[in-house]
Amino acid sequence: MHVLIIGGSDAGISAALRVRELDTAADISVLLKDQYPNYSICGLPFLISGETALPQQLAHRSLAELEGSGLQIQTNTTAVAVDATRQTVETHKGQHILYDRLILATGARARRPQLNGADEAGVFSLRWMGDALRLQSFLIEQQPRHAVIVGGGYIGLEMADALHRRGLELAVVEHNAALLGTVHPSLAASLQKALLQRGHSLHLNQRLLAIQRRGNALAVELSDGSLVHTEMVLLAVGAVPATELAARAGIPLGAGGAMVVDRQMRTGVDRIWAAGDGVETYHRLLQRNVYQPLGTNAHKQGRIAGENALGGSRHYAGTLGSQVVQVFDQVVARTGLRSSEAKASGWQARSVAFNCWSHKAYVPGAGNLQFRITGDGQSGRLLGAQMVGPAGAEVAKRLDTFAQALFHQLTIEAISDLDLCYAPPLSSPWDPVQMAAQHWCLQREAPT
Amino acid sequence: MHVLIIGGSDAGISAALRVRELDTAADISVLLKDQYPNYSICGLPFLISGETALPQQLAHRSLAELEGSGLQIQTNTTAVAVDATRQTVETHKGQHILYDRLILATGARARRPQLNGADEAGVFSLRWMGDALRLQSFLIEQQPRHAVIVGGGYIGLEMADALHRRGLELAVVEHNAALLGTVHPSLAASLQKALLQRGHSLHLNQRLLAIQRRGNALAVELSDGSLVHTEMVLLAVGAVPATELAARAGIPLGAGGAMVVDRQMRTGVDRIWAAGDGVETYHRLLQRNVYQPLGTNAHKQGRIAGENALGGSRHYAGTLGSQVVQVFDQVVARTGLRSSEAKASGWQARSVAFNCWSHKAYVPGAGNLQFRITGDGQSGRLLGAQMVGPAGAEVAKRLDTFAQALFHQLTIEAISDLDLCYAPPLSSPWDPVQMAAQHWCLQREAPT
Repeated sequence: MHVLIIGGSDAGISAALRVRELDTAADISVLLKDQYPNYSICGLPFLISGETALPQQLAHRSLAELEGSGLQIQTNTTAVAVDATRQTVETHKGQHILYDRLILATGARARRPQLNGADEAGVFSLRWMGDALRLQSFLIEQQPRHAVIVGGGYIGLEMADALHRRGLELAVVEHNAALLGTVHPSLAASLQKALLQRGHSLHLNQRLLAIQRRGNALAVELSDGSLVHTEMVLLAVGAVPATELAARAGIPLGAGGAMVVDRQMRTGVDRIWAAGDGVETYHRLLQRNVYQPLGTNAHKQGRIAGENALGGSRHYAGTLGSQVVQVFDQVVARTGLRSSEAKASGWQARSVAFNCWSHKAYVPGAGNLQFRITGDGQSGRLLGAQMVGPAGAEVAKRLDTFAQALFHQLTIEAISDLDLCYAPPLSSPWDPVQMAAQHWCLQREAPT
Repeated sequence: MHVLIIGGSDAGISAALRVRELDTAADISVLLKDQYPNYSICGLPFLISGETALPQQLAHRSLAELEGSGLQIQTNTTAVAVDATRQTVETHKGQHILYDRLILATGARARRPQLNGADEAGVFSLRWMGDALRLQSFLIEQQPRHAVIVGGGYIGLEMADALHRRGLELAVVEHNAALLGTVHPSLAASLQKALLQRGHSLHLNQRLLAIQRRGNALAVELSDGSLVHTEMVLLAVGAVPATELAARAGIPLGAGGAMVVDRQMRTGVDRIWAAGDGVETYHRLLQRNVYQPLGTNAHKQGRIAGENALGGSRHYAGTLGSQVVQVFDQVVARTGLRSSEAKASGWQARSVAFNCWSHKAYVPGAGNLQFRITGDGQSGRLLGAQMVGPAGAEVAKRLDTFAQALFHQLTIEAISDLDLCYAPPLSSPWDPVQMAAQHWCLQREAPT
């Protein structure tokens, strides 16, 4: 049994390790287009910031460890064609590799906007290790004092934190009216404040029109006609699935151009499974596939693809869109649907805001937690939750209580029944998540 | 409608506020035996430590706030008799108060061991505000440099932290072979180490035989024959339900001498409900009542008693024994059953230990999390989880993921299906709770 995996990042290696776990005799090969297997893409901002000293620290496992697990890793190798009938993969080196089972884990690439100047020196995007190393070299060699970050999503904001730590002054450009489009603007406000307090500038409702070279520097032209002078530009405007290979192999593409897969991670083409940032992701609340390239999804899907490639029939439970980001001293987390998404899906969505202390305020160190809870006004079912609070206030793992409640289709009222742990330096007898839930229930009947 | 509540701590005030929430017209009276309504008993160690400056900071709500909500609070009033037929309560002042509905929230008192010297000056227990104020006065006036703490449970350990902060040297006496009997000894070990590292002494497997006066000081005689010289003794050996009034009113007593209640918090005596540390608590896994006096239970039960006293029929979902304590820089949390408890209840309990980083180790500040997961070897169902880790590693709210999984009777395998939130400074793509769960699954078949 030869299991061939194209892609050696989260989904690919999760698949490979699951195959190894379940079948110690299987031959497992992984084709990797660069020389950095199984590292944390999410860790690249921390390499740039200097918090992580060396690129190899970002590896979940080293090449030696992977090979020690019996995986054959072929680095710097790009797959150029899949012949599903002959069960072969052709590489750019002209090899034809026979497989019994194939797993496509080709991931995504950074979205590059079509505009003048996008290819100028000093303009970067960040997706792969190579991107990070180029950016790092630029920072060391050119010592820029100012950067423009285009895109106020997760990567843009983590990079704002990273470049701030390196002492750069920043201009953050976001085409929406608020940062972090996955949460309500009232929650993003604390991040906006945190940016401004640190002396950075924020350009909301602005699109990038062009990047102009001005000698050693750059000027960024925004849709309001203003020019921002800078020394470097980071384009953090999302990811697009890398699916050219899949498309040529006859695998249908769906949401956002990602590979269509079923909940068993099957592509519909015999003996080919797919997982990770190149595929559609089943949304547990929407009950349909969406495009949502996240490391958490990739790990879960990879593990399932690996198991099913060996003959298993495990189903992917689905995403809830649980996400968290720490920017400076603020943590913002979210799960489930926003009001507008829930309404579009037919729910009588009702969102309620709530604030409270992270633990009993008589013990020093309590922080203010800001909640936004969305539920169905008719059934009382929880549909989504968002939180922001200071680092150290257990925002991330409090959000997980809502994420699990969504998983189990709990009503918001039932959240008060959960036996959550309490001590005064850490919570309240009703945990803040329960107080927020109770507040939603009390407000449920109130006029909007 | 007159709702009378005996007891003005967590359960009593929760009941009162729930009545107020649901019926703005009800007359609500609360009889309180001291002058401190609705304060956090769990906060007393923080008052002693000095972290909380003033007793009134411990109040969840002030007397004025409670009265502002329309509650009639009668302080310094002890109920001495209930006449369930005439629907009256007699106070120590000779009042006879008529009620339509009665809620008994009489709480618990500190267990006082029967031994010579237990009533000496300098010997304390800690349950009510009065206890804390007496202890605080003693600390200020006598400036003791050494204390013996008898009992290595939650209160004993929080008080060790508190007295350590005040600069006292401590001897902690525990009759079991390890501190914190609610977790496995391997997890308590980190607390033991933390105590010893700070120069305190630990006397495990020791019972207190007597306390002897030696001039201005005390000597504590232990079961191994040793004498510990000290200036004060804190007895922290548990709580017993305060149920004399209930017993005289004909309410049956059960587990640990607590009032027997059903899941609607009914006492079996017409028009009388009960809640809090004076009553039995339904255990959701054991499916029977136990005695478990915790603030979290008291709040939930009080809220239900209040609702049902108005004609509701809400059921208490039950405790899972979720608890957390922070001692120095360590946080220990637990939920569900220990191996021995699970086995005694007929499960094929299997417990597995696991360690990992609290977040991706390439971001500075990751701490070591130590897990112990207990599941049923046959069904794979989660039965219990315990964790220890440094403050700041979100131990408490990670534990809640297990607590909610227990609530929903999840298998340990299914924990990997949960969409929990991740960012490198806060977690891993598989949260540590999922890695621990996966480890249990891999070890499930391994020989014990």
